[in-house]
Amino acid sequence: MKPAAKFVLVIHGGAGTILKSSMTPSLESEYISSLTQALSQGYSLLSTGSTSLDAVLAAIKSLEDNPLFNAGKGAVFTSEGFNELDASIMDGKTLKAGSVSCVRTIKNPILAAYKVMTSSDHVMLMGEGADRFAKDQGCEIVDQSYFFTQKRWDHLEKLKKAKLMALDHNAESTLEKNGKKFGTVGAVALDIYGNLAAGTSTGGLTNKKYGRVGDSPVIGAGNYANNKTCAVSCTGTGEYFLRTLGAYDVSAMMEYGGLGLAEAAEKLIHKKFIEIGGDGGLIAVDREGNATMPFNTEGMYRGIITEDGEAKVSIYKE
Amino acid sequence: MKPAAKFVLVIHGGAGTILKSSMTPSLESEYISSLTQALSQGYSLLSTGSTSLDAVLAAIKSLEDNPLFNAGKGAVFTSEGFNELDASIMDGKTLKAGSVSCVRTIKNPILAAYKVMTSSDHVMLMGEGADRFAKDQGCEIVDQSYFFTQKRWDHLEKLKKAKLMALDHNAESTLEKNGKKFGTVGAVALDIYGNLAAGTSTGGLTNKKYGRVGDSPVIGAGNYANNKTCAVSCTGTGEYFLRTLGAYDVSAMMEYGGLGLAEAAEKLIHKKFIEIGGDGGLIAVDREGNATMPFNTEGMYRGIITEDGEAKVSIYKE
Repeated sequence: MKPAAKFVLVIHGGAGTILKSSMTPSLESEYISSLTQALSQGYSLLSTGSTSLDAVLAAIKSLEDNPLFNAGKGAVFTSEGFNELDASIMDGKTLKAGSVSCVRTIKNPILAAYKVMTSSDHVMLMGEGADRFAKDQGCEIVDQSYFFTQKRWDHLEKLKKAKLMALDHNAESTLEKNGKKFGTVGAVALDIYGNLAAGTSTGGLTNKKYGRVGDSPVIGAGNYANNKTCAVSCTGTGEYFLRTLGAYDVSAMMEYGGLGLAEAAEKLIHKKFIEIGGDGGLIAVDREGNATMPFNTEGMYRGIITEDGEAKVSIYKE
Repeated sequence: MKPAAKFVLVIHGGAGTILKSSMTPSLESEYISSLTQALSQGYSLLSTGSTSLDAVLAAIKSLEDNPLFNAGKGAVFTSEGFNELDASIMDGKTLKAGSVSCVRTIKNPILAAYKVMTSSDHVMLMGEGADRFAKDQGCEIVDQSYFFTQKRWDHLEKLKKAKLMALDHNAESTLEKNGKKFGTVGAVALDIYGNLAAGTSTGGLTNKKYGRVGDSPVIGAGNYANNKTCAVSCTGTGEYFLRTLGAYDVSAMMEYGGLGLAEAAEKLIHKKFIEIGGDGGLIAVDREGNATMPFNTEGMYRGIITEDGEAKVSIYKE
């Protein structure tokens, strides 16, 4: 079936110290096939007339269910040995949004964020209350043991010994340089109706303390969508996206400053972030279907698919 | 002592259904003297060369310690009978920021938010972890009973019976029309060095469930400061500020769109908010010392003081 109009899905699986020299061929191939699979799931929806929201949910669910990525199943451990997950979603058509943070029992936090958007009067729910809301809404609830993966546990133990806190993969690769990379995940899409949507999901920081909240569950920081401008999902050191309102800032530079998508995203990641010492990247798509994926780290797991059905996946700098 | 240069402090104690017809003269006088006292405390700092951050902290601490306002001592109750408080602060000079959300044992959440900004690598801490961080940092810790006030408890009981959730004061005044008004609090300031700062603190929604987070602890939503543009603190239905990134949006309209402070704030509150059905208000000051206090509700507790030392306090529409 030939789709009626242009559509685009862009995804990421985290940015950071991702070097070809510390990657094995088999792990690289696992990443490529996992990203391709997430793109395919979104494509099969977009190409048959589903919405950008549906595609974003499907792509992120696929990445959350995959232990390779620091989101859902593959979430990292806090200093107390818990898995605490964050996710958010935004609908560019209605500017409605939903998010959950520091949840411990929701199998797919992105689906709970969607329920917050569609079935509550609120935007942000956190902690045990958000877990209860998701359960009340019929989201799949799992035991904390579902999120246990040996490699994340070993990573926590190593960081505790080294008294380090690791975002995504930087500290680990500094410690080990052995190719175990993690990552926040995200997806942005434009559907054939011209609607934009954005979603982001993460397992946070390994060995994080004190109920730290990053940018992923904060609308405008790690995630934003507006049909007037663009849809954006961010990855990197969350604190810099929180302080710059990174995701919304790309939209604001377009709406008020007249910048194009690539120019606005470039300015955030390669100028504003450099000025405040921030590291990370983002994926974005505008209402014309233009896409951009800038990052100022060594690599970012990323991929794009459009109406031609050809998935393009990349990991390192080009 | 005559200060060397221009300075301004603007505060608010919440916006909502605040009608002269449902206010008693003695309660009105209590509000006016409480707002005046908070302004005076900030003034005594700014006029003797202290920074805008110091003045914002002092003014908000004064409002947090006052049971009239829904922040600190006067915080409302959640559906489970807890007091859960949120606060945030931002330094316009460094663009550093800190916030705490859903904390239960910190006497002055604004001081804990300041500690997050100055003594942690993070921007947002939440829940029990944030309480622990504040304790570790030497913030004053109190028992939940410190936050007990009979009128807030009675309010919870009434709303539970009516199965309502109340933001600030709207639902209560709809229920009662008896002049018991609550309010998020906030302060923005420009000091003699040209530095802007903003702070916001709240006790949230009466009868709130599910760990709902509003705009007050979210940088860019309920609070923002940037020496390039302005300092902003918001009050109203938090969900609309979360979706519009209200506080940052005023700054973005100035920086990218070339709007003046009053024009940008007006556009947010009287145009964008009306379009999405949002209610609330904000206070803001720019780097020239211009101030604005727009709201689209019946009233907003507010006040301003500048280098002439004359406190101007208002409650209703003018």
